[in-house]
Amino acid sequence: MHTIFAEEFGTVGGEPGARFVIEGDEAAHAVRVKRVGVGEVVRVLNGAGLVGLARVEEARKGSVVLILDEVSRAERVMPVLHVWSATPKGGRLDRMIDALAQVGAASWTALETARGVVDPRETKLERIERLAAEASKQSGRAWRLECLGKGTLERALRRDASDVAVVLADGGGEPYRRSGCREIRLLIGPEGGWTDGERAMAIEAGATVSRFGAHVMRVETAAVVGAGCVLAIEQG
Amino acid sequence: MHTIFAEEFGTVGGEPGARFVIEGDEAAHAVRVKRVGVGEVVRVLNGAGLVGLARVEEARKGSVVLILDEVSRAERVMPVLHVWSATPKGGRLDRMIDALAQVGAASWTALETARGVVDPRETKLERIERLAAEASKQSGRAWRLECLGKGTLERALRRDASDVAVVLADGGGEPYRRSGCREIRLLIGPEGGWTDGERAMAIEAGATVSRFGAHVMRVETAAVVGAGCVLAIEQG
Repeated sequence: MHTIFAEEFGTVGGEPGARFVIEGDEAAHAVRVKRVGVGEVVRVLNGAGLVGLARVEEARKGSVVLILDEVSRAERVMPVLHVWSATPKGGRLDRMIDALAQVGAASWTALETARGVVDPRETKLERIERLAAEASKQSGRAWRLECLGKGTLERALRRDASDVAVVLADGGGEPYRRSGCREIRLLIGPEGGWTDGERAMAIEAGATVSRFGAHVMRVETAAVVGAGCVLAIEQG
Repeated sequence: MHTIFAEEFGTVGGEPGARFVIEGDEAAHAVRVKRVGVGEVVRVLNGAGLVGLARVEEARKGSVVLILDEVSRAERVMPVLHVWSATPKGGRLDRMIDALAQVGAASWTALETARGVVDPRETKLERIERLAAEASKQSGRAWRLECLGKGTLERALRRDASDVAVVLADGGGEPYRRSGCREIRLLIGPEGGWTDGERAMAIEAGATVSRFGAHVMRVETAAVVGAGCVLAIEQG
């Protein structure tokens, strides 16, 4: 069954029988590439938990008209995992975002660190945002991976709620252990590693220092493997 | 400190004071790119557990002469994790091998499955072998990732030793649990999934069916995340 991603879907109220129109790339892809036709049933996601089944009423290259058959609300994957990482160069950033969507991270933030070498521009972050939406759809996620722009280490370490665990990935740490928290922030440093000051600041703020694997990993591998391990160990 | 990968290093017997010559790409890279000079100390790995410190006696573009200072034998990362996966297309295979080396898998075998679409040729497997050696060096691994060619599901499921756990990655399985085995074979299916027959054959052979994550993953993501999770959970 073809899946259509439509943020607008959330706004139609979700009542069965509701009629709504998909336009732009999603419509063109459904009709031209996936050959979705009138009468067919498709899955619709709004990226924020709403999952619908809808019948195709009209199918043109520029627009697809859908009638909602069924709507349900999907639970978020728990724990809610926020990945904050240094920004890898070029295509490695794209591949990291794609894999983080597959692994089930809730969000990604570009972490500003002392030894980080890439400072992503606004235009790059917008492109990454679209990529995250597409990758989330490809993975069949009811809740999409969100890209939350840039953030400092100070902000990453701030614990506004009590049920948040902050985890600093570092080769010098202990193997990761289950926290039981509903929300986890996983911090991945740049290729040159954390500075002593950054590490001390994190420990001071109550972060857990954990290692994921025995060898040197590049940022995008560490982020994806770290995210997979945290989710597997918390859920296991 | 610069690292030189040299299989020959294993054959010099490993006595301090031994003198040996590095040639080809490794020598050229050390001298041209890393500017390694006479008198400098470098790390030498043979990819099979031998780790040496050596002084540079001569440094030319075509050859580097080393005198061994110290030699030690590194333990293998435990458990020994063998990844058998469907072969992803094009650059995705290269990136998977690169990431498996970083994560700490002991070997990779191209698994032949009913729905697999890529059947890697001999020339491709040779290229992958070189890539695995390079990636292992980049990750500072004393034991390199080995690429073991192609294998059938029947062979992957055969348990010749008692202390081997075979794990079939599948969205329908339970979260992965620690086996305590010294050797683990992780089987990753193709994008179209396992057939019912393949799944039944694996269960019949005593394999554990485990899922890694809540969403659909591509082969290379599943292999790397699955490997990372198995190692973290077994070591944790």
